[in-house]
Amino acid sequence: MAFKFILDEPDLLKDCVIASSSLLNEAVLTVDSNGVSLVSMDSANVALVEFNILAGAFRELEASEKTEFGVNMADLVSVMRRVKSTETLEMSMDDGMLSLKISGNAKRAFQIPLIDVKKETKIPQLEFPASIEIKAEFLEDGISDAEIISDAVIFEADPDSFKIRSRGDNRTAELQMQKGEDGIVSLEAKDHVKSTFSLDYLKKMIKASKISDVASVRIGNDYPLRMTFTVLDKAHIGFVLAPRIEND
Amino acid sequence: MAFKFILDEPDLLKDCVIASSSLLNEAVLTVDSNGVSLVSMDSANVALVEFNILAGAFRELEASEKTEFGVNMADLVSVMRRVKSTETLEMSMDDGMLSLKISGNAKRAFQIPLIDVKKETKIPQLEFPASIEIKAEFLEDGISDAEIISDAVIFEADPDSFKIRSRGDNRTAELQMQKGEDGIVSLEAKDHVKSTFSLDYLKKMIKASKISDVASVRIGNDYPLRMTFTVLDKAHIGFVLAPRIEND
Amino acid sequence: MAFKFILDEPDLLKDCVIASSSLLNEAVLTVDSNGVSLVSMDSANVALVEFNILAGAFRELEASEKTEFGVNMADLVSVMRRVKSTETLEMSMDDGMLSLKISGNAKRAFQIPLIDVKKETKIPQLEFPASIEIKAEFLEDGISDAEIISDAVIFEADPDSFKIRSRGDNRTAELQMQKGEDGIVSLEAKDHVKSTFSLDYLKKMIKASKISDVASVRIGNDYPLRMTFTVLDKAHIGFVLAPRIEND
Repeated sequence: MAFKFILDEPDLLKDCVIASSSLLNEAVLTVDSNGVSLVSMDSANVALVEFNILAGAFRELEASEKTEFGVNMADLVSVMRRVKSTETLEMSMDDGMLSLKISGNAKRAFQIPLIDVKKETKIPQLEFPASIEIKAEFLEDGISDAEIISDAVIFEADPDSFKIRSRGDNRTAELQMQKGEDGIVSLEAKDHVKSTFSLDYLKKMIKASKISDVASVRIGNDYPLRMTFTVLDKAHIGFVLAPRIEND
Repeated sequence: MAFKFILDEPDLLKDCVIASSSLLNEAVLTVDSNGVSLVSMDSANVALVEFNILAGAFRELEASEKTEFGVNMADLVSVMRRVKSTETLEMSMDDGMLSLKISGNAKRAFQIPLIDVKKETKIPQLEFPASIEIKAEFLEDGISDAEIISDAVIFEADPDSFKIRSRGDNRTAELQMQKGEDGIVSLEAKDHVKSTFSLDYLKKMIKASKISDVASVRIGNDYPLRMTFTVLDKAHIGFVLAPRIEND
Repeated sequence: MAFKFILDEPDLLKDCVIASSSLLNEAVLTVDSNGVSLVSMDSANVALVEFNILAGAFRELEASEKTEFGVNMADLVSVMRRVKSTETLEMSMDDGMLSLKISGNAKRAFQIPLIDVKKETKIPQLEFPASIEIKAEFLEDGISDAEIISDAVIFEADPDSFKIRSRGDNRTAELQMQKGEDGIVSLEAKDHVKSTFSLDYLKKMIKASKISDVASVRIGNDYPLRMTFTVLDKAHIGFVLAPRIEND
C-alpha cells in the first residue's frame, strides 16, 4: 500500500476538495510524510489552485514514499460530500483504486478509479507590492456587490486603503476599507496598485472561505492576484488568478 | 444636490421597493420634505402600487424642493438587496445618477442611472362598502389555498364574516373567518359584497406583508380591491387591484 | 354521509399520503371502523404501497359501513400540504365529493372530486428469510451513498451483518452494519441472502421515514423487499418492491 491516512476532521479536506472542484475537472493529488497536497491549473490556464493538508491535521499518516495520483474531481467530490463532520475518514490506495472508508455509526466504504493526469504544475514565483489580510465576509460583500454591475472587478490598494470596485453600463459599485478599520487585519502597500479580475473566477475562489474567516489577498499593478485561506498548522488553500487587461 | 436622505432602518424602503418591483418594471420616485413616495400602475394597467416612507422614518431628510426621478426597478432592487438590516443607507442624486451609500463595517457605494418615465399616476378616489383588518398570515393562507384550485379568487364580506374562496374544475377551496375571531382585527360591511380577483396579482401584493403583520383589505361588489400594509408613523404600502368580471 | 373522521394529528395521514403519492398517480382509499387504509400498485407494477391510519389515531371516526373511494393523489396531496401540524382535519364524503375541513385559527374547507379506480390490490403473501430493524438514517445514508455510483443497489444480509452496496463503472460504495451495533435494532437472518433493487424506487419509499425513525426491512435471495415504518397503535406505511435480476 503506497499510503494510508486517517482524518478525524474530514471537513478540512472536504472543503478544500469542494472549493478546488469548482475550478478543476481533474487533478493530481500528492501524499507524502508532509501531508496531502494538490497543485493544478484550471483548464483555461487562467487560475492556479493549490491546497495542502498538513501532517498536524492527521490522526495517522503512513506514507513511506511520495505518491502522486490523478483523480476526476467530480468523483472525489461526490464521495467527500457523503462524509459527515463527526465521522472519521480513512483514505488509501488499493489495486489501482482510491479507497475511502468512513467510520461513524455505520462503516461505509467507497472506491473510485485513478486516472492518468499528465500536467505538472509549479506555483509561480511572484512578488506582490501590496498585501492585505481581510475578513472574508467583506471580500464576499465586495464580490457580490460587483456582480450586480459587471463581470469584472477592480482590486485596488494604496498605503491607507483597499477597494473593490466595478463599473458597467452607467452603473458603479465600490467597497472601500481603510487601514485600521475592523475588517482589515493588516494592510501593507508600497504604492497605489490596481488590477482587474474576472468575477466568475473570484466567486469560485471565495467559496474556500469555508475553511477560514480571514483571507490573505496579494495584488500588484496589472498583475496576478493571490488569495489564500489558512487554518494554522493544519491546512491552507490558495489561488493565483491572472489579471484581465482592461482599458479602465 | 436635489435631495439627500439617511435611513437607519433601510428594511422599510427595501421591502417596499422589492414588493413593488414584482409589479413594476420602472417607476417614478418622489422625494420631498414628507419623505419618499411612489405611485405607479403596472404595465397591464390592472394594479396600482403606491408606497410612502414618512419623514419620521429618516435620520436625516434634506429635500428643499420636491424631486421626481425615474428608475428601473430591477436596478434599484439589485442594490437594495445588498443593504443589510444593520447598515445605514444614504441616498442622493449626483450628476444625473442616483447615488446609494451603505455604511456598516465597510463603506460601500453604488450609482445607478436615472431614466425618463413619463406616466403620471393618481390614486383613484374609491368608496368601499366593506373594510376588513386581518392578520396577514390568514390572507396568505387563503391565497395559497386558492392557488391549488384556480387562477382566480373571490373575496366576499358580509356584516359578520369574511371569506376567500375559489372554485374550478370540480374542486373548491374556502377560508372563512367570523367577526370577533382571532385573525380579524376589525370588520365593517354594510351589506354582502363579492368580487373576483387574479391570484397572480394577489400573490405579488401579499409579499408586502413583510412590513406589517396586519393587512387592511377594502372591497365592494364587482369593484376594485384596496390592500394596505402600514408601519405606524413610518411607512405604508398599498395596492389597488381591478376586479375580474366572472359569471360565478 | 358514508363516513366522517376527525384527526387532531393530521401529520400522520399527511406524511403517508405524500410518501404514497411519489409512487401512485391515483388510489383507492378505504374508510371503516378500523381507520383509513390504502393498498395500491404503482403504474409500472413494480412496487406496492399500503398504509393504515388506525382507529386509535382519530379523535372521531364515524364509519358505520366500509366505504371505498378513488382519488387523484396529486389532488389529495395539494390539499393535505395546506394542513398545518397544529390544525384539526375533518374528512367526509358529500355529494360525490371528498370534503376536507381544516380548523385552526381560521376555518378552511376544500372539496375534491372522487374518481373511478378499478384495480383491486391485495398484499402478497411473502416469506422472508431475513428481517432487519434499522435506524432510518442509516438506510438513507446507504441509499444516498449508492446513488453516486449506480441506479441499482444490493441489499445483503447474513446472520451477523447487513450491507447496502452498489457498483458501477469502476466505482463502488458499501455501507455495512454488524448485528449489535447502534443502528441495528434487530437482525434475524437464517442464511446469506442478497437482492438487487432500483434506487429510484427506494428513494421514494425512504421518504416515509418521516413518520418513524426506525425502518423494518425484510429481504430474501433474488426476492422482493418489504420496508415498513410504524407509529405504534396509530399508523403504519409499508412498501413491497420487486427485485431487479442482475448478473452481479
